[in-house]
This record gives sequence, structure tokens and C-alpha cells, in this order.
Amino acid sequence: MILCDIGNTNFHFFIDDKEQMYSLDSTLPSLDGKVYYISVNEKATTKLKLFYKETIDLEPYINFDTSYSGMGLDRKMACLGVENAIIVDAGSAITVDIIKKGKHKGGFILPGLSSLKKVYPQISQKLSFAFNTKVNLDKIPLCTQDAISYGIIQSIIEPIKKISKKQEVIFTGGDGEFLSTFIKNSNYKRDLIFNNMRGIIDANNCIT
Amino acid sequence: MILCDIGNTNFHFFIDDKEQMYSLDSTLPSLDGKVYYISVNEKATTKLKLFYKETIDLEPYINFDTSYSGMGLDRKMACLGVENAIIVDAGSAITVDIIKKGKHKGGFILPGLSSLKKVYPQISQKLSFAFNTKVNLDKIPLCTQDAISYGIIQSIIEPIKKISKKQEVIFTGGDGEFLSTFIKNSNYKRDLIFNNMRGIIDANNCIT
Repeated sequence: MILCDIGNTNFHFFIDDKEQMYSLDSTLPSLDGKVYYISVNEKATTKLKLFYKETIDLEPYINFDTSYSGMGLDRKMACLGVENAIIVDAGSAITVDIIKKGKHKGGFILPGLSSLKKVYPQISQKLSFAFNTKVNLDKIPLCTQDAISYGIIQSIIEPIKKISKKQEVIFTGGDGEFLSTFIKNSNYKRDLIFNNMRGIIDANNCIT
Repeated sequence: MILCDIGNTNFHFFIDDKEQMYSLDSTLPSLDGKVYYISVNEKATTKLKLFYKETIDLEPYINFDTSYSGMGLDRKMACLGVENAIIVDAGSAITVDIIKKGKHKGGFILPGLSSLKKVYPQISQKLSFAFNTKVNLDKIPLCTQDAISYGIIQSIIEPIKKISKKQEVIFTGGDGEFLSTFIKNSNYKRDLIFNNMRGIIDANNCIT
């Protein structure tokens, strides 16, 4: 089964239980079989449909109830079937969604980790430092490299902690594993979106 | 008395108790009298010194004890004379410094409000929304405009709240007034840096 999650920056393929990423402007891989996809990017969707013989859009099969207007399909897919949790998809943007008693309560959007890293040198060359992944958040920084690294991590982690309170936080997305290390009651589910896509396909025999 | 705080983006003049901003590449105003300055930008310092007959660098008069290495002069100036407070200078970058019992404990750096606003449309055109200054932080957002506005504000406010606990937070800088509205135990001191520069000049009769 070939799955594809089309984001803002990359095609994320899931083939034989492994993720393969291709940037939106790169050449797509030759593949045999149906490509099941969800997409938040129309232009990339057109590219996918032109390149592969059989593509199946899973959007019509996503049954997700929310009062949130304009919620991306990937966000909905990540939240499917959750009863009580904060879902954090840490990609080029970081989406944070709150689910309580099976109901989507809303969410917010932070800039992605890589975007935040790029912002500092744009403000001033004096703020151009390598990101220190090992910065200690329990100590107040005493040099600029740590001051920036601390600022980047806390600007992501603290807003999430604020709304999570004691709820479980589930991370997914490229930076999810790293970020999950900063929140105690958290889990990293690398293939959350693909697993939910597979769940939809399995539940709808008609589309297999 | 003419004061000038040279930052990463602008010359901030203080003339007759009023601030006047000039971008670093703009023509400087004609002024009579000594220009007392602090600077974090060498190139702009050279420009200032070439343009005005008498300029006096206040750096040698700043007596600020800290273990923090590489702390900008403007940050030191903002923290001078503080006994117990969190000092937040919200300019093109947002510096946050912690002072306890008159001792500087360190600090961290967040991207400025305007930089954060610009990041989202760079990630995706779908994240291009006007910033909603009135977003309610007590409600979980239910649309993308609010999700982004909430994300921007919380990514600044929550890291500050986290380290401030119950200490007073003093805001200064261009976005300080706006941001101070989101923290209860806070004050906005528009002319904090200029007032401290004046304090140094008054205390050192020799340089007047």
C-alpha cells in the first residue's frame, strides 16, 4: 500500500512501512500501485495526479467534526480517533490541537523549528549561532548561543504546556521526536498520520 | 541633551524628551550639541561619529556586573539599577533578562513580534493572515487567523511568564506596550534605556 501526505514543503510517501520524503519541486519516484493521498497543496496534488496512474484522494472519507474553520486535512488526519490528548504536528509549521472527550476544541499554530532557527540571523548577524540542542532549560542562559536556543525551544514548548495541563501530548512530524523530549507526559508517534490514513482505507473496503 | 541608542535596525534618538527613529541607512537629522550614545552596531556607530561633531560613547561608564558573556550594551543599559524584576526589551529581537536581589541571573532571546509575523507567510501562503491584536488568549482558537495570532503572542508571553513567576515584568521597546497588556504583574517603561543613559550622564559630571 502506497500512502502520500502532501504538505507545504514535501511529499511524504509511506511505502513498505517506511517514510520517504521528496521536496515539492523534485522528481517523484517510480511506483507500482494505487497512491492514496491527502494534501494541503493544490499544485503538488496536480503534480501527483499527473505522475501516477491511479491516485485516490482520502479527503471524502475523513469524517472529522469540528467548529474550527479552515483546518488542514493533515491536521484532521492526525487528530482522528483521539479521545483526550494534545496533538502536535511539528513540521514546517507546528500545529497544536486540543481534543477533549473525543471533541476537537480548537488549536493554534507556531512557526516550525527550522523557521525559528532562521529568523535570528535575519534580525542581526550578531544573533547568528548554531542551535544548541542540549541547552538546559532549567538554567537561565549565560551566553548568546544558549539564550537563542533556550528562546527557540521555550517559544514552542511553553505555549503547549500552558494548554496541555496534565493531558497527554502526542507529537508527530519531523521535529516531533526532538520536541517531545522537553515535555514529560508526552509520546512521539512517528507514523501517526500514515497509520490513520491506513485506518481509513481499511474501514472503507470500497476504496481498496 | 541628545541621546542615541543604536540598535540592529534603527537609530533611536531622544531629543527634548521625545524619541525619534531613523533606519540605519537613512539620512541622520541635523542636531546641535553633544550626542551621547550606546551602540550594538559598529557600522552605524561609525556613521554617527562621522556625521556629528561631538559624540560621546557611554559604554566606558556602564558598570554592570554579570556572568553572561556577550551581553549587548542596550540590554545592560535596560537592566541598570534594577533590584528585582524581569526586563523585556521588545524590539527587532526580544531580550528577556532576570534580575534578582540586584544580580543579573542571565536571560534569553526571542524573535521580535514583527519577525514572527513575517515567518508564517514564508512557510506557506495558506498561513498569510493579518495579525489579530485582539485575539482572546483565554479561548482556544477556532480559525487560522486566530490560531496564528494566538501562536505568535503565546510564543512570546509564555516563556516570559514561566521564568517571571510572581516577579514584576518591566517592558520597554517598540512592542513593549502591546505585549505588556498580556501579563498582569507588568509595567511598560517607554524611555527606560534613555532614562538610564541620562542617569549615567548625571552621575558622571565629567562627561557632561
